[in-house]
Amino acid sequence: MQRFLDLADFSRDEVLELLELARRLELRPEPQALGGKVLGLLFMNPSLRTLASFQAGMARLGGSSFVITPGSGTWQVETRDGVVMDGSPAEHVREGIPVLASYCDALGVRSFADGRDLSADLGEQKFRLIASLVDKPLINLESAANHPCQALADWKTLDEIGVPRSGKFVLSWAYHPRALPLAVPAAAVHMAAQRGMEVVVLRPEGFALPDAIMDKARRAAALAGGSVRQTADRGAALAGAQVVYAKEWAATARYGDEAADAEARRGLRDWCLGESWFAGARADCRLMHCLPVRRNVAIADHLLDSPRSVVLRQAYNRLPAQMAVLYRLLKPAE
Amino acid sequence: MQRFLDLADFSRDEVLELLELARRLELRPEPQALGGKVLGLLFMNPSLRTLASFQAGMARLGGSSFVITPGSGTWQVETRDGVVMDGSPAEHVREGIPVLASYCDALGVRSFADGRDLSADLGEQKFRLIASLVDKPLINLESAANHPCQALADWKTLDEIGVPRSGKFVLSWAYHPRALPLAVPAAAVHMAAQRGMEVVVLRPEGFALPDAIMDKARRAAALAGGSVRQTADRGAALAGAQVVYAKEWAATARYGDEAADAEARRGLRDWCLGESWFAGARADCRLMHCLPVRRNVAIADHLLDSPRSVVLRQAYNRLPAQMAVLYRLLKPAE
Amino acid sequence: MQRFLDLADFSRDEVLELLELARRLELRPEPQALGGKVLGLLFMNPSLRTLASFQAGMARLGGSSFVITPGSGTWQVETRDGVVMDGSPAEHVREGIPVLASYCDALGVRSFADGRDLSADLGEQKFRLIASLVDKPLINLESAANHPCQALADWKTLDEIGVPRSGKFVLSWAYHPRALPLAVPAAAVHMAAQRGMEVVVLRPEGFALPDAIMDKARRAAALAGGSVRQTADRGAALAGAQVVYAKEWAATARYGDEAADAEARRGLRDWCLGESWFAGARADCRLMHCLPVRRNVAIADHLLDSPRSVVLRQAYNRLPAQMAVLYRLLKPAE
Repeated sequence: MQRFLDLADFSRDEVLELLELARRLELRPEPQALGGKVLGLLFMNPSLRTLASFQAGMARLGGSSFVITPGSGTWQVETRDGVVMDGSPAEHVREGIPVLASYCDALGVRSFADGRDLSADLGEQKFRLIASLVDKPLINLESAANHPCQALADWKTLDEIGVPRSGKFVLSWAYHPRALPLAVPAAAVHMAAQRGMEVVVLRPEGFALPDAIMDKARRAAALAGGSVRQTADRGAALAGAQVVYAKEWAATARYGDEAADAEARRGLRDWCLGESWFAGARADCRLMHCLPVRRNVAIADHLLDSPRSVVLRQAYNRLPAQMAVLYRLLKPAE
Repeated sequence: MQRFLDLADFSRDEVLELLELARRLELRPEPQALGGKVLGLLFMNPSLRTLASFQAGMARLGGSSFVITPGSGTWQVETRDGVVMDGSPAEHVREGIPVLASYCDALGVRSFADGRDLSADLGEQKFRLIASLVDKPLINLESAANHPCQALADWKTLDEIGVPRSGKFVLSWAYHPRALPLAVPAAAVHMAAQRGMEVVVLRPEGFALPDAIMDKARRAAALAGGSVRQTADRGAALAGAQVVYAKEWAATARYGDEAADAEARRGLRDWCLGESWFAGARADCRLMHCLPVRRNVAIADHLLDSPRSVVLRQAYNRLPAQMAVLYRLLKPAE
Repeated sequence: MQRFLDLADFSRDEVLELLELARRLELRPEPQALGGKVLGLLFMNPSLRTLASFQAGMARLGGSSFVITPGSGTWQVETRDGVVMDGSPAEHVREGIPVLASYCDALGVRSFADGRDLSADLGEQKFRLIASLVDKPLINLESAANHPCQALADWKTLDEIGVPRSGKFVLSWAYHPRALPLAVPAAAVHMAAQRGMEVVVLRPEGFALPDAIMDKARRAAALAGGSVRQTADRGAALAGAQVVYAKEWAATARYGDEAADAEARRGLRDWCLGESWFAGARADCRLMHCLPVRRNVAIADHLLDSPRSVVLRQAYNRLPAQMAVLYRLLKPAE
């Protein structure tokens, strides 16, 4: 494996092999596997789970890592091409990225969506530029429209909690005061589709997932024997659900228009998930969320603290899932 | 040992054993003792000594660590229960803490007092919540009313500079422009009492240490054969002192009232310790302070730079003292 | 070697030996050389290359490091002596520096020029104080008027791209919206002089490098058989150049006067280097810069992206050059 940028770059069988490796490393740790290897971690945006789990995972495999956070101890970084750099950023990715890559054996990069131009964000304009500048193993730590590490951990979680391959997976929009990126919803629907599930996206009007995301997930579903559709009908969506994956995201109808987004989410505060959402679901239906989550805004305390919730297991699974990725990218052949 | 949260959780003999281990690790390093172990360090508040010495100590024992600082590279974290999270914090400790704990073998957490509600701070409301969420070895890196790592290093320092067990230990209030927490004064009086010393707290009117702190120290003193009292009489307090431990803290008479605090400390700028404070003390009386210290505000240059001062030794001792704690928490049984 | 503060502290032969060691460590890594060693890194100012390459280099030699950045997770630090510390900084270097040094086997410190008092900056007032407080191996990570790690990496780069010892080295001022320090220009002219090159400093009126910098470089040149001069004549300076080293720096005629500096750089936006600058240079003349660089402000895109540019190689060479320094400072004798 040379890069880990998108689950869609891998066949279903390859993903299953990665998950098998993750389980093996949990059962039989290999604390020397990556001795002497160095992972660089570049965070253009905040992080808790990714930041902590990659450092911990690298250490558990015997390697080391360093963290760079532009704007905090490091210069702000410009990502636009061709600009006259007379503003705040003192460094351009065209220098910063290859320089960092030259110091390490693998580089992880987080670079969120700008949230202004939907096609630029869905096209991964910024991350593609960054990736073009790296000649080392590269890991997507969340880009404008993808979060493959989260998706891999989520797949592992679904396996562990016994959700069958063909089970009903509902990705439900949840309220949030601001417009959040499409990365996790895009990664989650694709992951569930690639797993072979019946995927339903439940969201209010104005928040439909864009065609590019739906079409990509449908291609994965077609190969795996599943399906993908979206609806605003809460009852229909949740009926018989085996998993509800809650996630906040931006209004897509007028993407990038802050006032329109605020207007679109007005009156949607009842999209704060609680136990009542599970009335028509299967009795053992579980709640997923990638975290961080705003309690009593996106999900109510009583639901997060109930046995339905597997959000902590999802977060924990970041560690073994990413250790498998690091192992594949960095373990010298024997 | 499962947790290191408060020296009061340990008998005097257990503390002496920890100090013996600290000395042993100084003389006979064990650079492989914690090979493969990962320490997570969560700093809700600034740090220099704790931040550096825990990373250095873990490395010297062969382990690794990662640092998380909410608000700088990581989401701000909410610690109140039951709130509707529509403000700045995007993450709640109810998720953040167990997630971090799940990535590491031991977790250290720093969470200062809010400085608003005295009984909440003295009751360690916030840290108790945090501790309840961790199922791994946990270390208190300074909570609202405690700083056991500092206390352990201070005890080691007292031993090294030859202050007898029954010597006179004066904790003296020192001026500071703002209301600082009660954590170090509380930890210092308890430590000195548990060591068996004659403990005198010297402070201006309005800055008396609360009963809860004094009573806890007195219980330790009773077991160890020492005593604890407080006074505003500088001459009486300092007469015959063998150690003066300077520390800044908030006005306690009207705790949490910023205007009252500012009013209380008006006219107290002469509580900047200098050599003249040692007129009635023993000739070899030493000056202690936990650092950081505002020079010429809390303590004068000439005193800090004189042979009386052992503040650098105290700070250095954080390293071996904490290495002993890490060793006890993380070293696999043989 | 006890300290790495200035290339001028070493003879030409000693520098050549360091470069030989750097090459050896590239060819034959020694991943256990510094096992158990801890490097402390104190950054008073932002960094990308230094921050990443020292951590990576230490890890590649089997050691560990920790990073402290005052003002971000750590208290702001006061560097002036004798002040009443009632402002923002809560910690003084007189405590902070020896404390950090006591936790590690070697300490690296970055402390930029204040940019107010030329003689204080050129005299390294601040760094000398810091250095006087450290009793461990110490590394200058960029001080007011020096950047020896950059200079060593640059020398290595010159060797690798085949620039002869006696070649013509032009340090050219480049435009920047703000007054930047003299550290890199000072280090670069000295390095080139010590290497034995024909060194020409090209800069507009008002930006002449101070005598102290020029004289020091001339002393090195005298020993190595080279020469050092400065001029405002672009054509004469660039004629026959084998290397152009672009760098932004403050107006020196009225150093520390912000308005005068802004006035001095008005009308100098054409000091943005492009291919036209190389008209009279040798065909194989290369472009160097220490990075970060503001594209299309200091250097045009087309030049940075052309084969002339070796800026990425310079940045990469920080890693092996610094590994040689760490090795010399920390490797136990055998």
